[in-house]
Amino acid sequence: MATHVVPPRGMRDFLPAQKRRRERVLSTIREAFAAHGFAEIETPVVEDVARLHSGLGGDNEKLTFRVMKRGITAEDLAEAADPIDLADLGLRFDLTVPLARFHSSNRASLPPVFRAVQIAPVWRAERPQKGRFRQFMQCDIDILGEAGIGAELELLTAAGDALGRLGLDGAFIRVNDRRVLFAVLDAASVPADKQDSALIAIDKLDKIGADGVTAELAEMGLDGARVMQIINELAAGSVPDGIDEDQLATVRELLEADCGVRIEFDPSLVRGMGYYTGAIYEIAHPDLPYSIGGGGRYDGMIGRFSGTDVPAAGISLGFERLVDLVELEDDGIETIGLIVDKRSSADALIKAKRALISEGKRVVIAKQTNNMKSVMAQIAEAGATHFAFVTPSTDASAIEVKPLD
Amino acid sequence: MATHVVPPRGMRDFLPAQKRRRERVLSTIREAFAAHGFAEIETPVVEDVARLHSGLGGDNEKLTFRVMKRGITAEDLAEAADPIDLADLGLRFDLTVPLARFHSSNRASLPPVFRAVQIAPVWRAERPQKGRFRQFMQCDIDILGEAGIGAELELLTAAGDALGRLGLDGAFIRVNDRRVLFAVLDAASVPADKQDSALIAIDKLDKIGADGVTAELAEMGLDGARVMQIINELAAGSVPDGIDEDQLATVRELLEADCGVRIEFDPSLVRGMGYYTGAIYEIAHPDLPYSIGGGGRYDGMIGRFSGTDVPAAGISLGFERLVDLVELEDDGIETIGLIVDKRSSADALIKAKRALISEGKRVVIAKQTNNMKSVMAQIAEAGATHFAFVTPSTDASAIEVKPLD
Repeated sequence: MATHVVPPRGMRDFLPAQKRRRERVLSTIREAFAAHGFAEIETPVVEDVARLHSGLGGDNEKLTFRVMKRGITAEDLAEAADPIDLADLGLRFDLTVPLARFHSSNRASLPPVFRAVQIAPVWRAERPQKGRFRQFMQCDIDILGEAGIGAELELLTAAGDALGRLGLDGAFIRVNDRRVLFAVLDAASVPADKQDSALIAIDKLDKIGADGVTAELAEMGLDGARVMQIINELAAGSVPDGIDEDQLATVRELLEADCGVRIEFDPSLVRGMGYYTGAIYEIAHPDLPYSIGGGGRYDGMIGRFSGTDVPAAGISLGFERLVDLVELEDDGIETIGLIVDKRSSADALIKAKRALISEGKRVVIAKQTNNMKSVMAQIAEAGATHFAFVTPSTDASAIEVKPLD
Repeated sequence: MATHVVPPRGMRDFLPAQKRRRERVLSTIREAFAAHGFAEIETPVVEDVARLHSGLGGDNEKLTFRVMKRGITAEDLAEAADPIDLADLGLRFDLTVPLARFHSSNRASLPPVFRAVQIAPVWRAERPQKGRFRQFMQCDIDILGEAGIGAELELLTAAGDALGRLGLDGAFIRVNDRRVLFAVLDAASVPADKQDSALIAIDKLDKIGADGVTAELAEMGLDGARVMQIINELAAGSVPDGIDEDQLATVRELLEADCGVRIEFDPSLVRGMGYYTGAIYEIAHPDLPYSIGGGGRYDGMIGRFSGTDVPAAGISLGFERLVDLVELEDDGIETIGLIVDKRSSADALIKAKRALISEGKRVVIAKQTNNMKSVMAQIAEAGATHFAFVTPSTDASAIEVKPLD
């Protein structure tokens, strides 16, 4: 008998209409990134579990789905001290650790400055909740080997163009610099050993407000009011006591460049990952309470597996959030719903299909029933804009096609 | 220091030129299948491991990569009787078991006859060897809910069109019918309990020849000479003693239909999987010693998880073999290699990029060096057909673009 048949917990099936929509958005993003000189690469979905757990993934490392070694015997089981000893691979939890591994494996075949696109799924064993999935798509661009601000300008320009092509014209980018954040903390006399914790508190500004952050910093024995005051002065465009104009140089350059997208300085922007070393950015939209992408410079990371120093910066579009926001036009190929009379032969259908397809059209098929409204709804759902009938008397060379309206 | 950094065993990275080629071939196949009314779906890469091991996957079930349960403790480890108890999910080894699960989960939202496309990776823990990979792409179309021969005709027509769009015009399809095979064995007095083993022997015809098959059948105590004689008579177009014309009806219909691709009857065609119940097909090319796709009718399988009977037939293109064979033209978007003088600013590059992209062009970037030959080779490798320089004096509104070579 039928059991409760569902996809694995926290994961999704995509029905035709959803899949079509996702592929349209992905191909729009792909085209934008390709136009800007980013080259798509692909890595296996799994990596050595030890590499996934080498400290580059932050908290995400804890969310790795582990793949068991093959051919484990009952003796192996008895001898294993820790469950982790039984796994050798893991599903990637982001595209950045695999990019570092890819660059180490293939750098002899890559140009000295490498502009990479990765559009691929990642997996995290999170507690499933609304809007969070255990398998989801990431759309990343990264520039490896470029230490200068040109990398940031290219990333923001390409991301801005992708957002424009998706019709999200109001989108803008909030920028900050990890070095500005540390300068703020220095200026507020936050000792070095408390700066990382202070950043975690500042990162909650959106959620708990300025008073909440001030209080949380005060609890740590820090001058929270002073921290917030410096941040507010920077946001207002002034240069507070204790901050050098030099420390703002990167942010200034980003604000002055013309990347085709609005860029705003947000001195409270932290971004969660500890690996960022310079400029950081987050994509926002005035209609949305959450970010739709982000990234930053992470100079220490790409060379970790190869032992070479490779400057790097990247930005990631939040595809799973974007996909529900955008309205894209269809791809312009006329789709005909062929409604097949039950008296017609399989051969008649094939002839009609081939005739329409040879004219460059796309065909979707439905059987004729007494409920024409449902048949029309079915072909519309499948993407048809026109319809035609296949009956025993249909002449494949003269099929009458009508608009669905 | 650098360790030996490589992808997991038997898996591959794809560099930009390879990835571009793969995506071009995939999108050509996608367009062909979409034109013929097949709708793409997507399922998670993992399924419940029990479902993967429910007997639908044949020998591939043994090749499952198992995913460990999360939060396994040392106590769980001590209590586990079998290593398999520690896994709850598995990476799919084909797209057919997931399709059966998908159909059971979503049939209320699908049309009664559902034409599905799945273009997605699968994983098999095979011993790595030349041309065999542990992660590879499958391109499947399936028609669920259609018991008539129309399903086969649509599948073969769509596959033939895809091969044509890939430029593999010589490709043809060898067809047979599982029921013909059993009729042959009955006519040669092979007892029912030896018929599956006999099919395994016949399946080796390509490798060991007619004499080898005859000998192998004889070793099983069967009349191998008679089996091969009947097969040869069928191949020659006659109807041997013991075979009814009725038993050949499906094959005859396939041979008589006009699917836009050459179809040949091969009465020795077996196809490995035990789940086929009717017509079976294999895609061949006169220049190639191996098949480039195949499929068949498998009526018992899709309903297994839901307990409902769902007739089904499908065909799979052998993407990993096809991708190296085909020569596709590029997509027609002009790609300019921008060669950047080291004296120019990041801003100048951004301006030049944006100017060319706004004209509908694609841009790839290289730094100017003393070795112009290597620079030109680099941009050509990245897909450029034209080039232009960015220098401190470049006027973004009047960039001089020249053809490469």
